[in-house]
Amino acid sequence: MSDLPHLTLVLGGARSGKSRYAEELLMRAPSPWTYVATAEALDEEMRDRIAHHRERRDARWQTRDIPIDLAGALPKLQGPVLLDCLTLWLSNVMLAGNDVASETDRLIEALKKTPGPLVAVSNEVGLGLVPETSLGRAFRDAQGRLNQRVAAVADRAVFMAAGLPLELK
Amino acid sequence: MSDLPHLTLVLGGARSGKSRYAEELLMRAPSPWTYVATAEALDEEMRDRIAHHRERRDARWQTRDIPIDLAGALPKLQGPVLLDCLTLWLSNVMLAGNDVASETDRLIEALKKTPGPLVAVSNEVGLGLVPETSLGRAFRDAQGRLNQRVAAVADRAVFMAAGLPLELK
Amino acid sequence: MSDLPHLTLVLGGARSGKSRYAEELLMRAPSPWTYVATAEALDEEMRDRIAHHRERRDARWQTRDIPIDLAGALPKLQGPVLLDCLTLWLSNVMLAGNDVASETDRLIEALKKTPGPLVAVSNEVGLGLVPETSLGRAFRDAQGRLNQRVAAVADRAVFMAAGLPLELK
Repeated sequence: MSDLPHLTLVLGGARSGKSRYAEELLMRAPSPWTYVATAEALDEEMRDRIAHHRERRDARWQTRDIPIDLAGALPKLQGPVLLDCLTLWLSNVMLAGNDVASETDRLIEALKKTPGPLVAVSNEVGLGLVPETSLGRAFRDAQGRLNQRVAAVADRAVFMAAGLPLELK
Repeated sequence: MSDLPHLTLVLGGARSGKSRYAEELLMRAPSPWTYVATAEALDEEMRDRIAHHRERRDARWQTRDIPIDLAGALPKLQGPVLLDCLTLWLSNVMLAGNDVASETDRLIEALKKTPGPLVAVSNEVGLGLVPETSLGRAFRDAQGRLNQRVAAVADRAVFMAAGLPLELK
Repeated sequence: MSDLPHLTLVLGGARSGKSRYAEELLMRAPSPWTYVATAEALDEEMRDRIAHHRERRDARWQTRDIPIDLAGALPKLQGPVLLDCLTLWLSNVMLAGNDVASETDRLIEALKKTPGPLVAVSNEVGLGLVPETSLGRAFRDAQGRLNQRVAAVADRAVFMAAGLPLELK
């Protein structure tokens, strides 16, 4: 038995302990667990980060690399799913030149259809000064809108700081 | 009858749902409502943002454009007022070369004298790395001090993330 | 008698009222109080900030300048200690070319051994866009990890915004 609701959003800054907290949440549900990785190992820094995250997970985890087509893949996944993270997914969608608004709509529908329980990790990136580039502003705005959309359909949402959760919902 | 206190501060990052939440709060008071806009449509990106905000508001709203002289204008406004936002006001004050400390003092006195209820929107901008430019640091510091001053005289203050409020006060 | 626990972490953005709140907390314990300053007055802007912080403190405060060796100094301090702040300490450690991971380990052990009560101030810097430089990313990551480590051994942790605390722990 799991005490997790259908969808939990774990929101926070860089190195706020989001991924670890999300993993611990998901592991309250019975294994096997699916780890949906949106990261693409494009450079060494990224490979290090991915390896660092993977070394925490054992054989009860199955890893799926889904950089873009979450809408197609998520509803087919059975059992507990950790989605880490929506920020890299958004970045991948924008880099691919896909339409962010319609991809966001598709993602929200897919989240609703995924059996779950599902824990989704995302970054809050809008709490600094206005970015100097128009791409930076576009990304920040798209991320903020995405976070609002996911939070609206989530059963629970937390804001992480220093590894500790503040309850948003 | 309104269940709003005299002054509410809605603080948050970019695209955190501040404006929408603030509008919904204010609409708990009986219309007509006054929307005090501090934005100046200096470029197309800004015009788009302003238009996006306006399309949510109907004829029960009266819009007043007050980029700088909030201290002179606010106390004369009768009925519920949405002030959106203090960050653009601060930016306008600094760009005009006005003294930020004395303008902040005048604003605080004006907020106290405004009949209200009043809902003020402001950005938290100090949660990234130290800005590289001295102007960036000066703006970040002035915004932080302004937020502290307004929160101190507010009856309620919330911190928004992903469209959801955390109660500061 | 003091109602302060052994270790309190006051986390927040720039100009969020962290230092003032931390000082007020510490002054609930009986004086004399020790102010551990990690700032180095390398330029005029920094000197102004330091002077601004000092002018709030009277003769009941003893100031100790400890830019790097907190691990050696803290356990020897008797009575209530305000540590302001871990962000400048981290910056000093990195600029000196010291190993951040082992220095963080040493700091955590020292915090445990300090008689206290101890109030530590730190910045949250990970809530903006990804920094453009690799040094910026390294600093942001080290700060986030440090905040998690300190929060884990703290008895209480708060996240400040607009001068007001949200309870993390």
